[in-house]
Amino acid sequence: MSAMRPFKRLLSSEEALKIIMGNIRPLERVEQVRVEDAAGRVLASDVVAGFNVPPFDRSSMDGYAVRAEDTYGASAFEPRRLRLKGVQHAGELFEGEIGQGECLQVATGSPVPKGSDAVVMVEYTKQDGEHVEIQRPAYPGANTSPEGEDIKVGEAVVKAGEFLTPARVGALAALNVEMVKVYEKPSVAIYSTGSEIRPLGGDLAPWEIYDVNSYTLASIVEANGCTPIRAEIVPDDRESIEKAVRDASRHDLGVFSGGSSVGVRDLFAMVIEEMGEVLFHGLQVKPGKPTLFGIVDETPIFGMPGYPTSCLSNAYIFLSPGLRRLAGLPAAEPRTVKAKMGSRFVSSSGREQFLTVRVLDGVAHTVFKKSGAITSMAHADGYIVLPVNLDVIEEGEEVTVTLLD
Amino acid sequence: MSAMRPFKRLLSSEEALKIIMGNIRPLERVEQVRVEDAAGRVLASDVVAGFNVPPFDRSSMDGYAVRAEDTYGASAFEPRRLRLKGVQHAGELFEGEIGQGECLQVATGSPVPKGSDAVVMVEYTKQDGEHVEIQRPAYPGANTSPEGEDIKVGEAVVKAGEFLTPARVGALAALNVEMVKVYEKPSVAIYSTGSEIRPLGGDLAPWEIYDVNSYTLASIVEANGCTPIRAEIVPDDRESIEKAVRDASRHDLGVFSGGSSVGVRDLFAMVIEEMGEVLFHGLQVKPGKPTLFGIVDETPIFGMPGYPTSCLSNAYIFLSPGLRRLAGLPAAEPRTVKAKMGSRFVSSSGREQFLTVRVLDGVAHTVFKKSGAITSMAHADGYIVLPVNLDVIEEGEEVTVTLLD
Repeated sequence: MSAMRPFKRLLSSEEALKIIMGNIRPLERVEQVRVEDAAGRVLASDVVAGFNVPPFDRSSMDGYAVRAEDTYGASAFEPRRLRLKGVQHAGELFEGEIGQGECLQVATGSPVPKGSDAVVMVEYTKQDGEHVEIQRPAYPGANTSPEGEDIKVGEAVVKAGEFLTPARVGALAALNVEMVKVYEKPSVAIYSTGSEIRPLGGDLAPWEIYDVNSYTLASIVEANGCTPIRAEIVPDDRESIEKAVRDASRHDLGVFSGGSSVGVRDLFAMVIEEMGEVLFHGLQVKPGKPTLFGIVDETPIFGMPGYPTSCLSNAYIFLSPGLRRLAGLPAAEPRTVKAKMGSRFVSSSGREQFLTVRVLDGVAHTVFKKSGAITSMAHADGYIVLPVNLDVIEEGEEVTVTLLD
Repeated sequence: MSAMRPFKRLLSSEEALKIIMGNIRPLERVEQVRVEDAAGRVLASDVVAGFNVPPFDRSSMDGYAVRAEDTYGASAFEPRRLRLKGVQHAGELFEGEIGQGECLQVATGSPVPKGSDAVVMVEYTKQDGEHVEIQRPAYPGANTSPEGEDIKVGEAVVKAGEFLTPARVGALAALNVEMVKVYEKPSVAIYSTGSEIRPLGGDLAPWEIYDVNSYTLASIVEANGCTPIRAEIVPDDRESIEKAVRDASRHDLGVFSGGSSVGVRDLFAMVIEEMGEVLFHGLQVKPGKPTLFGIVDETPIFGMPGYPTSCLSNAYIFLSPGLRRLAGLPAAEPRTVKAKMGSRFVSSSGREQFLTVRVLDGVAHTVFKKSGAITSMAHADGYIVLPVNLDVIEEGEEVTVTLLD
């Protein structure tokens, strides 16, 4: 019974995260994707502008292109009267030149015609046959965007390592970039371990349960910019676990669930120790104490608890930041809401606690059943993290709920 | 020049959102997807448990299954000594029964053997050959999960309309649900309009620019649970616009950009008015005043400003909530960070202002150039919304930055 080893010192979540982030390097492999598929990816090399945007001096308003000096002193009571030379719609080019005392009707986005240096907004004008009354003065450059104002040729508009927001995708389109070099999505292999775990579809023997963790973990992997690969369920024997760890080490990251508790069949930690290095095993968090992180053949390996809620809460707290680092994504600021605690909560675990809650009308109600219960999280809107040294939250106290998504 | 109509009363963003949300109904079409593809979707009918989870009374700890009464009064100094009947690993079933004075070694997740009613954690025991010393008392039910504790047969575990978080996907897996009925992703057609706009790949005439908005809008549509369909660019003539609006009305929602300013070619609003109904045109926001919302053949139609930053900022504020409602998704709580304003900012627009910023070391620096400049957003980490009645933010003042993603 010596195999039932208790945990050594439990790490705090800060210590654990430091080890995780210090031992995962962003993936360096790159691939080309079409710009319309690039949102949410991470750019792998600077995109340099090949031309100016806008590519010409353009009007930024609907109105009349003028020589600014012709408008000085104009007002509604003393308008300046200019001769209308014509109309230039967007997508058209007026070939002539605007002389003294002349103007051209222009649309937003159309070129500023030769000779003119300002645009007067239509709101401050009045057309009168062949003439236009200008009711406000315009300074030189008014209501125009000079060539290159947005992007200058040679400028690195979006840089390597930047996350491609919709706006950055737009900047690439503005530069006629059809294919983009981005970092590959890391390949993350997921293994549920345990001889009692069965794949969906089949029947259960009276001591068996269906696989839950490979589904929840795959959702987390996908949501954090990586490609989940759900492997077959791994029975609790040394040979199967060794084979699975070898397989995992060929991916960019491996996540196991189950098999990391201090049970008689706690082979997982031993296998990792033999094939590579265990960097931590055991966390000062509740639920989710039996969590392991190690490296095998330069591949980071997570050993998550077997219990669905423990597995998933630690996936939010420890796995997600690691996945994002691997994928080169920026740290995720959580979506939070403030709520009042619906009832007094007492924690005496001496561990950091992840407490799932449902928020109704601004009140947070605990929904935690047990760490073995998937409904402890499936019925939750979010969670509260209670620090190690906090034992009680009073009813009505304000709490910050991090939303699950 | 009578076509250059100024806007009538400008709506506040609250009024506009109310109209949008009041006129978009969640899509009712459903489809079946595999449970592993269901995260992020919205469940279309209740999933009712066909069996109990766990399907048997199980141990929730590694330890020894006992009759609780055999342990009463036990302590480290006065341990109770029980006869070990064997070992039951996870995935195994011990067929015998635990009698008085007996125990069975059990793994987390394995069935509680007949005759026993509690489990003592391994930490509070000491094995001694054929016997085990129990050093703590256990109450009946201690460290066990009764059958159905997590999910009871007949229970609606995940309900129609619920957003499928990783945990809810896990609950479906626990119930052996392989295919899930979810709401279809709405089909959203996207049209860039304007005779000066060219598709990527070709050359530009000196008065032309590349299409940006269909790319930024498609990213927003995709990120909000809908399927973007980027249509061909629509020239600024009545026939082309009518054809595009007819096409849009065959989708679940249509988004146009450009063509909604008060220019001579402002045909878009007229076409919507003729073919359906304009619900608003003109918003008290900066940038993004020339925004339209209408209905044609029961299809909601958005007319976004042509300028890339105006188009995209209004897509975040007005289009995204509409898309989420259409897709049946919950309202998105924004990801925010607090920052100190890096310099004094004065707004005198009399409109709600969407101010893009870059956040460096907790300081928000404005990056806004012009609403025509895509870099006004591409270089931003997020934005600050200034209410209509706020004219000045002082340097050093705390602001809430909503992050772009």
